[in-house]
Amino acid sequence: MPKSLERLDYAALTPSASIAALTHGWRAKCLQRLIRIGLPVPQTVALPFATVRAIADGQMVDTAAILALFGTDALVSVRASSENPDWGGPGTLLNIGMTWARHAAFAASHGAEIANTLYLNFIQSYAIHVARLDPDLFEASDGSAETLRAALRAYEQEMETPFPQDPARQLAEVLRSMARAWEGTSARLLRQAKGAPMEAGLGLMVQEMVLTLGPGDCGWGMMQLVDPVTGSAQVTGRYQSKSHGGAPLETGVLFLTEDPRGPSLQERNPHLFAQLIAAAEASRVKLREEMQISFAVEDGALRVLDAVRAPRSSRAAVRIAVTLAQEGIITRPDALLRVEPRALSELLHQQIDPRGSRDRIGRGIAASPGAAQGRIVFSSRAAQASDARGEACILVRRETAPEDIRGMHAASGVVTERGGITSHAAVIARGLGLPCVVGMADVKVNLKDMTVTAADGRVFREGDMITVDGTEGTVLAGAVDLLPPAQDENFRTLLAWADDVRDIGIRANADTPADARMAHGFAAEGIGLCRSEHMFFDADRLTVMREMIFANTVSDRKIALDRLLPMQRADFTGMFEIMQGLPVCIRLFDPPLHEFLPHDRDGMRELAEALDRPLSDVIRRVEALSEFNPMLGMRGVRLGIVLPEIYDMQARAIFEATVDAGIKGAAVVPEIMIPLVSAKREVELVKTRIESVAAAVRNERGAGFDYRLGVMVETPRAALRAGEIAQYTSFLSFGTNDLTQMTYGLSRDDAGRFMNTYVQLGVFPEDPFYMLDVDGVGELLLIGAERGRRAQPDLTLSICGEHGGNTESIEFCRQAGFDYVSCSPFRVPVARLAAAQLALRSPRIS
Amino acid sequence: MPKSLERLDYAALTPSASIAALTHGWRAKCLQRLIRIGLPVPQTVALPFATVRAIADGQMVDTAAILALFGTDALVSVRASSENPDWGGPGTLLNIGMTWARHAAFAASHGAEIANTLYLNFIQSYAIHVARLDPDLFEASDGSAETLRAALRAYEQEMETPFPQDPARQLAEVLRSMARAWEGTSARLLRQAKGAPMEAGLGLMVQEMVLTLGPGDCGWGMMQLVDPVTGSAQVTGRYQSKSHGGAPLETGVLFLTEDPRGPSLQERNPHLFAQLIAAAEASRVKLREEMQISFAVEDGALRVLDAVRAPRSSRAAVRIAVTLAQEGIITRPDALLRVEPRALSELLHQQIDPRGSRDRIGRGIAASPGAAQGRIVFSSRAAQASDARGEACILVRRETAPEDIRGMHAASGVVTERGGITSHAAVIARGLGLPCVVGMADVKVNLKDMTVTAADGRVFREGDMITVDGTEGTVLAGAVDLLPPAQDENFRTLLAWADDVRDIGIRANADTPADARMAHGFAAEGIGLCRSEHMFFDADRLTVMREMIFANTVSDRKIALDRLLPMQRADFTGMFEIMQGLPVCIRLFDPPLHEFLPHDRDGMRELAEALDRPLSDVIRRVEALSEFNPMLGMRGVRLGIVLPEIYDMQARAIFEATVDAGIKGAAVVPEIMIPLVSAKREVELVKTRIESVAAAVRNERGAGFDYRLGVMVETPRAALRAGEIAQYTSFLSFGTNDLTQMTYGLSRDDAGRFMNTYVQLGVFPEDPFYMLDVDGVGELLLIGAERGRRAQPDLTLSICGEHGGNTESIEFCRQAGFDYVSCSPFRVPVARLAAAQLALRSPRIS
Repeated sequence: MPKSLERLDYAALTPSASIAALTHGWRAKCLQRLIRIGLPVPQTVALPFATVRAIADGQMVDTAAILALFGTDALVSVRASSENPDWGGPGTLLNIGMTWARHAAFAASHGAEIANTLYLNFIQSYAIHVARLDPDLFEASDGSAETLRAALRAYEQEMETPFPQDPARQLAEVLRSMARAWEGTSARLLRQAKGAPMEAGLGLMVQEMVLTLGPGDCGWGMMQLVDPVTGSAQVTGRYQSKSHGGAPLETGVLFLTEDPRGPSLQERNPHLFAQLIAAAEASRVKLREEMQISFAVEDGALRVLDAVRAPRSSRAAVRIAVTLAQEGIITRPDALLRVEPRALSELLHQQIDPRGSRDRIGRGIAASPGAAQGRIVFSSRAAQASDARGEACILVRRETAPEDIRGMHAASGVVTERGGITSHAAVIARGLGLPCVVGMADVKVNLKDMTVTAADGRVFREGDMITVDGTEGTVLAGAVDLLPPAQDENFRTLLAWADDVRDIGIRANADTPADARMAHGFAAEGIGLCRSEHMFFDADRLTVMREMIFANTVSDRKIALDRLLPMQRADFTGMFEIMQGLPVCIRLFDPPLHEFLPHDRDGMRELAEALDRPLSDVIRRVEALSEFNPMLGMRGVRLGIVLPEIYDMQARAIFEATVDAGIKGAAVVPEIMIPLVSAKREVELVKTRIESVAAAVRNERGAGFDYRLGVMVETPRAALRAGEIAQYTSFLSFGTNDLTQMTYGLSRDDAGRFMNTYVQLGVFPEDPFYMLDVDGVGELLLIGAERGRRAQPDLTLSICGEHGGNTESIEFCRQAGFDYVSCSPFRVPVARLAAAQLALRSPRIS
Repeated sequence: MPKSLERLDYAALTPSASIAALTHGWRAKCLQRLIRIGLPVPQTVALPFATVRAIADGQMVDTAAILALFGTDALVSVRASSENPDWGGPGTLLNIGMTWARHAAFAASHGAEIANTLYLNFIQSYAIHVARLDPDLFEASDGSAETLRAALRAYEQEMETPFPQDPARQLAEVLRSMARAWEGTSARLLRQAKGAPMEAGLGLMVQEMVLTLGPGDCGWGMMQLVDPVTGSAQVTGRYQSKSHGGAPLETGVLFLTEDPRGPSLQERNPHLFAQLIAAAEASRVKLREEMQISFAVEDGALRVLDAVRAPRSSRAAVRIAVTLAQEGIITRPDALLRVEPRALSELLHQQIDPRGSRDRIGRGIAASPGAAQGRIVFSSRAAQASDARGEACILVRRETAPEDIRGMHAASGVVTERGGITSHAAVIARGLGLPCVVGMADVKVNLKDMTVTAADGRVFREGDMITVDGTEGTVLAGAVDLLPPAQDENFRTLLAWADDVRDIGIRANADTPADARMAHGFAAEGIGLCRSEHMFFDADRLTVMREMIFANTVSDRKIALDRLLPMQRADFTGMFEIMQGLPVCIRLFDPPLHEFLPHDRDGMRELAEALDRPLSDVIRRVEALSEFNPMLGMRGVRLGIVLPEIYDMQARAIFEATVDAGIKGAAVVPEIMIPLVSAKREVELVKTRIESVAAAVRNERGAGFDYRLGVMVETPRAALRAGEIAQYTSFLSFGTNDLTQMTYGLSRDDAGRFMNTYVQLGVFPEDPFYMLDVDGVGELLLIGAERGRRAQPDLTLSICGEHGGNTESIEFCRQAGFDYVSCSPFRVPVARLAAAQLALRSPRIS
């Protein structure tokens, strides 16, 4: 006996009914609460999840008994009601109950055309959504008898059975169809992608339709009390007079409120309008949310059909949450939990106006959010020239390299043909807050011809205007309308509340004084990662840097480094002053030296001239420094040990800047971080030299200062040996980008070629450069943290790098007992909110 | 009271004395045993370690009392006696006791010149080794009174004190000097490098000198019963007639045995010779070792002065050990423990004859042992041409790439300017058994001019004859004399004994049937790693491979793969037949595709012609496939998942070869290994496809066969997730090369630039590509093994790669419960012996 014969449950909504989102869905719960507060909701019956699941399994409720609750002449609608509004569900079906008998009655009371239209609408919906027939067969929509008969014929030919004339049977088929649609594979995947569990249920609501056909004011509308774009208090929505169930009778869209452009409901029927506003306000307060009300007017009487969470832009979401809390309708924690952290990043950047049209050139990976427009340039030099002329430009490259950083600074946006979410271009662009799209697989960049060939074959050239949408990951032709950023008072209020509740520190990665200013503006609690070498890419420094690289003796190298020293000192002094005593963690020089050398013949020729050396010398040096796998080569602490003068100079610059900043009133305890460590002896050697530089500076300047020394844990070995390493350090900061590369054996610059395939096939649940790999990389973090803390209980632990701002990473770090996360300045607001939400949702274990 | 006043211990050697290597040193123990068996050893007093240590600390034995044991006129010598002969010690000092008084006596009895010479010799030794004066002051060595007086004057001027005339004081100073030399830093480092513990002690022996000045047969010599080069039974050594204490009196070197080239001791004094042989034989049997005897003859009477382990080449060491065991003098385990495993690899290759002279061009890293000579070539093409002409050549490159493999096959030896112990050139050369030197930092290779510039500035060109010494790591000018390899009967006997006792399997890495033949010849128990892609570098296959790479559609790719299928199948059939049913583990295609494409313009032009495509097409494809970090890019299982047709073809080739080999009587259960895994789903996806290929082949061929599927653990993540991965596999084989690269974040091809500095500074105790990093990589091995076995108790565990043959790695794998290690064929004999020694020295825990 596979099917249970017990009576399937359903409930009429009444002020006293017990309807929960967990059993009947959020929509049923909303409606039930509207009824409880006395709003005029038509008769509604709610089918709980268990009933709908039984229907999908082949059982059926007593539909005749349900229809009997509505009276014999009623038409009904069925709406989906899942546990969470984001999980979707089948669309609403209207006009259930239309038959030839009802047709005849409508024809008699309202005329044949209205009767035809109502019946045709129902047949079309039923055929397409219940009988699953080809929509092409049911296209015509005029109110003629001919069209109606043609639709019925089409139905009967396809189904080989007449159109059902029993309302109870119609309702049963509709319920079965909606119940099964919920169980379909695509619906299931879609909602699981939005976080729904496997066993997520669907409720269904059968509601009596309001016949807006009476002699007085009739119509149908939707309204909310806020502007969906800005979130400010303003009645918005629409009202269609004399319409019924989607079939316009007397075409007449009215404004809701008084409007110079035309008639409004407010003018035409102030009493009704007042009732509507009262209903909306009541639901706002009782449901503790800005709601969008669906309503119908029948002969001047208001009926509330449905209420859903009012749609809103990210900016509006912030304002609504803050306002509701300020008005005492919700608590501050509620307000914090109602804004999606990711949405905040939209508020930091210009965005493409959603109302405009989009002429897409190609699609890639959304690498850095926001929109920008400008003329195409293909080189950093052209970008700088364009910037000098005051013309916005978009830098288009196959990929970017460190030598492009100046060009990126000069550009408004960046597009690369290759690369993934953590490629060089993507990382730098996020740091700069520059809209960026990478991995444009359907676009070809030809640097020789200076052309971009679009997916559809169109060719764009230098100087052509384009728009980069780094939020969506698309590149558009021409200049489209942009919306400005929105870091307003509400934004700041919400984040101040977030800071009150979060329980993990948030720092920013900032490589230059400009970055530091931005980080401070976003209220970062310090700088977690200052990549000191980024300061060397300025034109004048690059030359000195190259002289240093070409030095053949220690003393020549020192001469070049002595010229870099005051520049570095000035950088650090600037950062210390900007950060006003907040901690600044400076990572010592990290990249391989060849990143500072030109890679093409022209660049080498120029360099030879600049250095006054034979070209062959330059070529030989460039070749000698080139590496098979630069990621795994002579960089980081390896350089610091083989050419210790570099770190000596940097340590001196840091200490002298500390003294200088102290004199200017910005006392700071700088943090010095050693990159790419794989053995404790590396730390020991560097530590000894840094200590002696500190002693020398203290002595020379007659000033005392403290500093903290730490290690960037980027190699699996450093994580495994953290116990030994921690004995020499005050802090460990996990560089999850490189650690991910090494744990997977996966170069982030080369992964783009197969990452999409890998994610599609489920080999990786997500790009591990985007979402921290908790199982593998995460275990190394836990091992490192545990061993480090065991050896050194006061050890400060953190992560820096691309993962730092992600909710998942923040939660991981909270649970692992880390002190802070560090992310790019533009991620700081997101991280502050995400951390607050995590603290509200689950207490910290350690 | 810092100095103890208790009497310092010493002992005269007698037949009943209790002298142990642990207290008095090996030399004292040997001598004491020679006395016990009745050999005529002069009076000897042994000072134990404790006494010598007290002397170094400032105390002194009663030297007058010691000298009294020898009689008033005796001269004495002092010899060092450390616990282990390999740990060194200060040199022997002779003629102690020479004073003006003894000089006068000698002048009276033997003439002034003899007296002068004896005294001068002692003054020189004493001044240089005891008083530590500048040796230049004591250069003259004629027997004149003038020279003697000059030496005494020089001593007195430097020391501002007369030369000591009290023999007891002379002896005390000698003992103090030798005791302190042992405690010196350089001596300590030297012996610790050879495995001596911090607290290793030194014993000293004071022996009465035999005055070989009498009227009858007098002289001094050394002899052993074996040939030090071959180890065969033959009396060898030398005898200097009428000499005394290093001062030749009547110049006359005699052969020991009858010799057509001149007079011999055997002819001149057959009785004495017989005594000498008897003494040597007795010491051989009693000391259970081939000994080198130092002896003196005084007026026809034999005196045995000292006996040390006879010096021996590696070949001789094997023969001696086997012979002693076969004669029942030592046990087979003793024989196994007496041969240094590393020494065996010398026996597999030609070696440079140590007796020849060496004109060194430069020095580098000894990357693959053995010596070879030939004419310089600078390209693989030239190597193949030279090979075709039947002329031996040495391939000289800045570094090698996979496209050089054919050239390496054609060359007799390989030299590269760059690279470390596990660079491409080094790995391939070891696999091929080709002498190879890499990382020649003091040599410049200019491929454009086709020159090699030596450390001293000499320029060598294509066609010049050179010799590579891959055992020493040097390159020599010209063709020097070579010794042939020596895998003789003794070698095979010793290894057969090793196989009886070892408790871990030894397989070989073999990529081609030729390699497999070598592996089988070295008695490998199977193939642990067959890098299947190495088969694609043959000229005809390379073209098809490139067609496959250039295929734009799946069907085009399949057409190319269908052409590769029969070639691969033939390769595998060949290997299965050669290995005669032993397991063969085939690693699926691993390298990035760009390794198969040309990198220079000429190569691309040729390829364009071969493929009949425009050059621009070829350039674009090469560029598109190029990677920033090939080691971390699109290779291994990533290729297998994105282009699954490649693995399909390989699986089919393996299964068809299995059926074919079975028909030919070589039934085999092939092992298929998936490379570069980082996630279990990779294994799941590949496994599913391989299973369906197996089903198809079983069906098509109507034959049943088994196979085993496994994973090469090369990424830290695969080790961490071994528990999940093991659920899909029968075996895990740890690829320690790549695992080391990723654990350290260190490319083996780029590490050469700083590895020397790192090892010198003690950052790494050893190059981790050469010696397994037990702390970091080793922990990942243990984690992987433990989690894998927990999930799958029958899991076969192994390591393959460069570390496989090292004693330390074998011991690590034994203790970790691994089933086998796999190494290059030429390392198999070394590994077999090393494993046997480990089994003898310590029982296996698991």
